[in-house]
Amino acid sequence: MTAVPGLDEDMEQGLAEPVGPDGTAGPAVRRARAWLSRAAEPGSVAFWRFVEDAGPVQAVRRLRAGRAPDAVRALVGARAEQDASLADLLRAQRCGARLVVPEDDEWPGHPLHCLTLATGREPDDPRHHPARTVSPVPPVALWVRGPARLDELAERSVAVVGARASTAYGEHVAAELGHQLGQRGWTVVSGGAFGIDAAAHRGALAADAPTVAVLACGVDRVYPAAHGALFHRIAESGLLVSEWPPGAAPHRHRFLVRNRLIAALTRGTVVVEAAARSGAQATARRAQRLGKQVMVVPGPVTSAMSVGCHELLRDTGLGAVLVAGAAHVAEAVGRLGEDLADPPPRPTGARDGLSDVAVRVLDACPVRSGVSPERLARVAGCDVLDVLRVLPVLQLADLVECTDAGWRLARAPSAGRR
Amino acid sequence: MTAVPGLDEDMEQGLAEPVGPDGTAGPAVRRARAWLSRAAEPGSVAFWRFVEDAGPVQAVRRLRAGRAPDAVRALVGARAEQDASLADLLRAQRCGARLVVPEDDEWPGHPLHCLTLATGREPDDPRHHPARTVSPVPPVALWVRGPARLDELAERSVAVVGARASTAYGEHVAAELGHQLGQRGWTVVSGGAFGIDAAAHRGALAADAPTVAVLACGVDRVYPAAHGALFHRIAESGLLVSEWPPGAAPHRHRFLVRNRLIAALTRGTVVVEAAARSGAQATARRAQRLGKQVMVVPGPVTSAMSVGCHELLRDTGLGAVLVAGAAHVAEAVGRLGEDLADPPPRPTGARDGLSDVAVRVLDACPVRSGVSPERLARVAGCDVLDVLRVLPVLQLADLVECTDAGWRLARAPSAGRR
Repeated sequence: MTAVPGLDEDMEQGLAEPVGPDGTAGPAVRRARAWLSRAAEPGSVAFWRFVEDAGPVQAVRRLRAGRAPDAVRALVGARAEQDASLADLLRAQRCGARLVVPEDDEWPGHPLHCLTLATGREPDDPRHHPARTVSPVPPVALWVRGPARLDELAERSVAVVGARASTAYGEHVAAELGHQLGQRGWTVVSGGAFGIDAAAHRGALAADAPTVAVLACGVDRVYPAAHGALFHRIAESGLLVSEWPPGAAPHRHRFLVRNRLIAALTRGTVVVEAAARSGAQATARRAQRLGKQVMVVPGPVTSAMSVGCHELLRDTGLGAVLVAGAAHVAEAVGRLGEDLADPPPRPTGARDGLSDVAVRVLDACPVRSGVSPERLARVAGCDVLDVLRVLPVLQLADLVECTDAGWRLARAPSAGRR
Repeated sequence: MTAVPGLDEDMEQGLAEPVGPDGTAGPAVRRARAWLSRAAEPGSVAFWRFVEDAGPVQAVRRLRAGRAPDAVRALVGARAEQDASLADLLRAQRCGARLVVPEDDEWPGHPLHCLTLATGREPDDPRHHPARTVSPVPPVALWVRGPARLDELAERSVAVVGARASTAYGEHVAAELGHQLGQRGWTVVSGGAFGIDAAAHRGALAADAPTVAVLACGVDRVYPAAHGALFHRIAESGLLVSEWPPGAAPHRHRFLVRNRLIAALTRGTVVVEAAARSGAQATARRAQRLGKQVMVVPGPVTSAMSVGCHELLRDTGLGAVLVAGAAHVAEAVGRLGEDLADPPPRPTGARDGLSDVAVRVLDACPVRSGVSPERLARVAGCDVLDVLRVLPVLQLADLVECTDAGWRLARAPSAGRR
């Protein structure tokens, strides 16, 4: 290992490293993020902001040199002096895994943007940040194992989650849903757990569709142990994904931290079975807060494993949609224009029927601070008069809203009930 | 029958007939409405308006004399010359039935007011009136059989309807719902049909609660024929109700006309099982148009008899609430402060309309072990007499319950829609 360059030398040289011509990050950036992914437990707003502001290479240098803010140094502690970055990258390579970083083209930046936005709403003072287990912070890097491209699978994906202690009914529905979604070209994302998760993965695999398991441990580990064959099959065509470096153990709190990724990576979350006040319910509420569509499969009211599902459907603030099958799911999260060959039976998307100009203006609208019609016209590349003509239409469709500062996207433009 | 006064003489004398001191209509008004209930099929806006404007006695006189508007005369036709009013009243009497008319105190004027309002929105021109099978018109009279008072039962009632070709699951849920609603002091109203209707009636009867079957034939007839024993039991403690005079046959269209009464008489309609595009769905939509709460019991998505239920829950315009049991139903249709103050126009939250004292007593109630009213008074900072006054109200709203140890919060006081 003596021929291997030291971390600090690598960082020194990596400061001006460009992104490669193939759209992948350079080796120093990747090594920096590998180091960062082990340096602190994921889920910290302060840590992610520090990395985002400094850049990964500079962030590593400052942490190594003890020049990071106190709050960030406290998160890393003694790990600042350790370095397993190359060992982790090699260990990943040996099991067919790799590290995907935000600087890569493969990074699912579009789906994960909801986390960036949500983190932007957190206060400056780290003492007021949410606990890691509920924090909406983006990952600093993702270890992925499998042949598929993460960004492509995530682009058209749905989370299917539910109880571990599922019933035969729930497993049947989850498998059927996974199968039908796979047949329709949707990627099923789940957590690889017993019960609903496994049934959904298996249904997708039975349709020869790639599926994604987002794990709470290293992608080279099998948890639960009985899912060795399942994970192997998933990694053959789809992806195993984790924020934690190879070898990381599935600690209990990591599942909660992980859950936000399942919600964030997908267009919506389907809850198949859930007991009262269960983890699946928490995942659904997180998905809703991230602006993702929450969908719920009902069940017999006599079944304890459907109580949580019915609670979600009774929560009017959540805007959860009842889904009885893949057609309902596609209707809730599908976007028009993508499935021209196979149009859904009841296309109800809010963007349907919008004129070309209207779509352009809509796409030009910012998420947070409002802007003037003049600015929208410039961004959309059309006339101000056209903008003024289509804005009322978009407002009527609850797609945009007018604030004191000007026009912006409406809060939950894609949520729920259309 | 020669001693019996003729209809026309009776009407002549009944013109100035007052309502009796016991709050019941006089004999001429009752005979007039008996005659009217046979003269035209229920559900006609023009006919109901004619009776409403002229008054029942005058309406009969004008129809008999051929002085009614053409549109109304066309509805009555040759029946104008016939008279079975006394025979119908006698026939009713022989089977323990009676005619309840709007002039009686027993008339459920409050629940049925929604029909008056809906009819008021119909146009003047009879050519533009809705078909009788979907018309929201009030009944001109109701034949009722059984010992209970119709107005009292209707005041705190819920419709439980659903498929005739129900499953064991649906029947179990309907019976359980009927039983629990009965135990909570709610009257279950249904149509006496096979399947869900019968299960709901039976559940209520098993709780020794009166139940109401609204029939599409005379209250002296048994349809379906296999429900002779069931109808007999219903008529022992509850009521059989019909718009049609004794002996009337259960024509197919009459069920559709009848359905509006089930929706109108109750505070809300619970659909337990329904096939896709089924009659139960139509009843639910009618209930919604009448301003009544629509509630839906979900089921397995694998069951064809729950498809209609899930369609209703997916219809966001309908505002249907998912209910998994009687507690959810009571929460959706129960009214708070009914006895304390004027109920708010759309009281949805259980705490809505509670007096200040009631809220303080509610907040003083412990979650687990019950306490005495004296202790509640100390915690709430009010008089024991006040506590004793509001506790029954809170109990009725399912907010508190009385245990052996004393008063405490009811089990699921905060579930659902606040």
